[in-house]
Amino acid sequence: MEINGVQIDDTYAEAFPTWIARVIITAVTEEWAYRSAVEATGFATSAIGCPCEAGIEGFLSGDETPDGRPGVAVLFCTGKKKLKEQVVERLAECVLTAPTTAVFDGLPDAPEKIQVKLHFFGDGYEYQKEVGGRKCWVIPVMEGEYIGEEEFGIVKGVAGGNFFVMGENQMATLIGAQAAVDAISAVCGVITSFPGGIVAAGSKVKSNKYKFMPASTNEKYCPTLREKVPDSKVPAGIFAVYEIVIDGLDEDCVKEAMAEGIRAASLVPGVKFITAGNFGGTLGPYKFELHKIL
Amino acid sequence: MEINGVQIDDTYAEAFPTWIARVIITAVTEEWAYRSAVEATGFATSAIGCPCEAGIEGFLSGDETPDGRPGVAVLFCTGKKKLKEQVVERLAECVLTAPTTAVFDGLPDAPEKIQVKLHFFGDGYEYQKEVGGRKCWVIPVMEGEYIGEEEFGIVKGVAGGNFFVMGENQMATLIGAQAAVDAISAVCGVITSFPGGIVAAGSKVKSNKYKFMPASTNEKYCPTLREKVPDSKVPAGIFAVYEIVIDGLDEDCVKEAMAEGIRAASLVPGVKFITAGNFGGTLGPYKFELHKIL
Amino acid sequence: MEINGVQIDDTYAEAFPTWIARVIITAVTEEWAYRSAVEATGFATSAIGCPCEAGIEGFLSGDETPDGRPGVAVLFCTGKKKLKEQVVERLAECVLTAPTTAVFDGLPDAPEKIQVKLHFFGDGYEYQKEVGGRKCWVIPVMEGEYIGEEEFGIVKGVAGGNFFVMGENQMATLIGAQAAVDAISAVCGVITSFPGGIVAAGSKVKSNKYKFMPASTNEKYCPTLREKVPDSKVPAGIFAVYEIVIDGLDEDCVKEAMAEGIRAASLVPGVKFITAGNFGGTLGPYKFELHKIL
Amino acid sequence: MEINGVQIDDTYAEAFPTWIARVIITAVTEEWAYRSAVEATGFATSAIGCPCEAGIEGFLSGDETPDGRPGVAVLFCTGKKKLKEQVVERLAECVLTAPTTAVFDGLPDAPEKIQVKLHFFGDGYEYQKEVGGRKCWVIPVMEGEYIGEEEFGIVKGVAGGNFFVMGENQMATLIGAQAAVDAISAVCGVITSFPGGIVAAGSKVKSNKYKFMPASTNEKYCPTLREKVPDSKVPAGIFAVYEIVIDGLDEDCVKEAMAEGIRAASLVPGVKFITAGNFGGTLGPYKFELHKIL
Repeated sequence: MEINGVQIDDTYAEAFPTWIARVIITAVTEEWAYRSAVEATGFATSAIGCPCEAGIEGFLSGDETPDGRPGVAVLFCTGKKKLKEQVVERLAECVLTAPTTAVFDGLPDAPEKIQVKLHFFGDGYEYQKEVGGRKCWVIPVMEGEYIGEEEFGIVKGVAGGNFFVMGENQMATLIGAQAAVDAISAVCGVITSFPGGIVAAGSKVKSNKYKFMPASTNEKYCPTLREKVPDSKVPAGIFAVYEIVIDGLDEDCVKEAMAEGIRAASLVPGVKFITAGNFGGTLGPYKFELHKIL
Repeated sequence: MEINGVQIDDTYAEAFPTWIARVIITAVTEEWAYRSAVEATGFATSAIGCPCEAGIEGFLSGDETPDGRPGVAVLFCTGKKKLKEQVVERLAECVLTAPTTAVFDGLPDAPEKIQVKLHFFGDGYEYQKEVGGRKCWVIPVMEGEYIGEEEFGIVKGVAGGNFFVMGENQMATLIGAQAAVDAISAVCGVITSFPGGIVAAGSKVKSNKYKFMPASTNEKYCPTLREKVPDSKVPAGIFAVYEIVIDGLDEDCVKEAMAEGIRAASLVPGVKFITAGNFGGTLGPYKFELHKIL
Repeated sequence: MEINGVQIDDTYAEAFPTWIARVIITAVTEEWAYRSAVEATGFATSAIGCPCEAGIEGFLSGDETPDGRPGVAVLFCTGKKKLKEQVVERLAECVLTAPTTAVFDGLPDAPEKIQVKLHFFGDGYEYQKEVGGRKCWVIPVMEGEYIGEEEFGIVKGVAGGNFFVMGENQMATLIGAQAAVDAISAVCGVITSFPGGIVAAGSKVKSNKYKFMPASTNEKYCPTLREKVPDSKVPAGIFAVYEIVIDGLDEDCVKEAMAEGIRAASLVPGVKFITAGNFGGTLGPYKFELHKIL
Repeated sequence: MEINGVQIDDTYAEAFPTWIARVIITAVTEEWAYRSAVEATGFATSAIGCPCEAGIEGFLSGDETPDGRPGVAVLFCTGKKKLKEQVVERLAECVLTAPTTAVFDGLPDAPEKIQVKLHFFGDGYEYQKEVGGRKCWVIPVMEGEYIGEEEFGIVKGVAGGNFFVMGENQMATLIGAQAAVDAISAVCGVITSFPGGIVAAGSKVKSNKYKFMPASTNEKYCPTLREKVPDSKVPAGIFAVYEIVIDGLDEDCVKEAMAEGIRAASLVPGVKFITAGNFGGTLGPYKFELHKIL
């Protein structure tokens, strides 16, 4: 199968379940909501070494937020127990502390909830108030008052949706990956948690040589090792590979993100081949077949 | 004492020691170095609830980096043991994974060192190479090859340098704080680790009401509680307070940052009063007297 | 009438007709489309001293552009004859010259058209090609090939939709204006052509003192002249005024932009009063009554 | 000659004189100074079709500006007579109108001056005031008061310093050009006036086929015409060419910018060849020989 002259491998991306909270951060301007969201979702690329995976899902206008102010929707993804702990710490340290921010539950219809009790920070001076139909706590702080919901819906979503962009040299492939991330940023319900949305150094589980390593370089996808490892998966003429990893609220939005991202990458000159990563079904229950989703 | 019509309180900021690593992240363009640096220094506002404090110290041109590419210098600050763990995880997850990045030690003359052995990720395919006079490891990855130093100098620096910007309403005070952060960003050796560099919700140690809380709102500095708490430190006519917290490599650069920041804030209309936070000398050994540093 | 505690004056904004072209600029990434759009719409705040008014209407995903790449929609507004000249020069100098850009007509259904014949730049090496159903010219250039449509629909739209944000001090009023611009940026069909979308120095037609001036400061709206001029329109307690000027494809989108902008500004603490500018009906045929549109 | 494996052509860039004004725009924050500067320097890529060439030279901290606020230095370049007209219009429409801005002369030691009398806008309410040792006019405006110098030094500088980045495909060459622009942005006294600093479609004077065209595509540098035109200057294996054009206050800073830019481009993988443009000495008196400046 080819799209815009780029060959699409006949394979599938394998993904696995994750618990997700969706937090809406609002502020006096979009810029302040964004700054807080960037801090709150940092150090959150991969569950391998970060305490969670997190990222910005999208921007919201005042019409779409409970308090009528501009906002940013962020997703936090990890195991159920760790999710609560991470949302508490990240909201407490990176949003409550940020200028003019408020937080609201972005999944009010989810049946499962986590409690994020920041109001104890108020040391008894806090009080309750309804904002846009949401039960909030108001905490007196140095800038004035912080406002936030404390119950957040969580859903079982999808982690590890992915595809690999391969190209004739590094720079062309990088811009191909960037175009993919641009396109995915317009899709609702998903994040790409790596820096700039792109993985430059994909990993395999464990290491062949160093037994203490939980993960190591995916040598079969390393262009410089093409002639040195058996069964290299780097096609002839490919000199760089970038992976796009997608976490999303459900299978449909991950599918849409993969399709939009692949189409966008295929339009960048120098991109030659697109495939996806799987572990033969041993990793997780979700399969996204490239030829079907496109 | 007055600067540009703004009253400067006759008090001092109290600060305490921290261990600091300085990492230079380079990339093919400044933008990619910056994206990686933002991810690597996220979720790192305050040692209270984040695994470390971290931030961007500044941008470096190709003349200033070992590999001649544009770079970003970042500081990681925390206790000695945790520092190594955090630098390892943050470089492994947020820089090694980012497109085109390389890392170099930003404190090569420091006598104490930490080892950040990312090369095991190479699973035996890694090799050593000198870049700009630095001993580096080259790790084959999907985009090509990752290059990085693995020994980083660390120094005992200063955490918690601070001042409080107070103003006649919230928005004016916020822009005053932002002007301060702008000015501090031009000072070498320091970071402001909070979102956008600004603390909207400063804390006191522990809580009077909730014994399980390690920190709670600093009610004496809350404008809405001015009439409700005894000994409020909010002067009449003040309706918002923002704190700027500075971590730095030594006392001199923290002093310079405080002075530049205070001067900048004093130029913003609506800013009325500037003070600093201390705990009477019980918190740490460093004292920065506002009237002396200005 | 009050919105969020902010008084809305019972008056109307007066606006006048302008001819508008809508150009879609696409590029390999959103960022490159944006950079070109910024250059193409610069020096275009006000018809008084700039050759046209222009600005960015919004961002388009690959699904919304003829060539499937990310794009930026820009509006150029001025008299009919000048419009053609300005679109030719701005596309030739700021888009054709920019990396990876292509241009498409953003008003294909408009019955009136202007011809923007950039293909002569090809010096005979140019050729025609259909892209996404659009007749384009391909021009060999140094980076490869430039692609663009050359016929652009134009419509008679609305210039000078406006409202004035007034507040208790300069900084609060500025952020109020910025929140208004944020909100307007989400509305289709409109631009705010001034720097950052905000007018800090509104003008009246002609000058009382200097007969050679086509425009001069609108002294009735200057807070520092409140006690010095007769009939000042600055209410008591107001110390800053910013004007938001809106150009749009039709009356409906200008109305929507005004409503969204006013609502957003009213949420910013320190904003106290919102009014609009008119010349008693002598300037133009459009009237936007604040109380009706909200 | 080779740098980092990239061949540097043994040729020179030919440049010509231009008159330059350097304006320092300050504002309450760097961001507002920047927004105004972007608007004021837009539609100013090339003297061929724009009213002047202009761009941002660099950022200034409060220590470097007359009023102690953060600032942006911009250069305006064109013929002497047009320079005055353009500086007047661009400051009047894009800086005076922008929030919180002030302007100062960036070349106070230049013996030649232009008068930029914006104070007539004050309609008689304006007055004089000294700021940071500079004679300024204060004009009452809607946001409060605008402050600005009105006499600007001008110098005979250099326009058209240039080099061409050539590479193995379009994306790699584009990032090479971007790395060059990043490096040049750190050099004092120069601007790169094209969108993002890069020319994707370089021109030759006049047209062979269309006699009414003042300029047309430089077919000898078009990769797609390599086999079709006689004397193509595109080497084998080159599939994209970007030009960096530099205007500067004197020959030394243009040389430094060229050297820094070429070095930076040479570090980007896929960049293969760097040359420069000249017209055999018929265009202007300045020659920048690539092998000498490096």
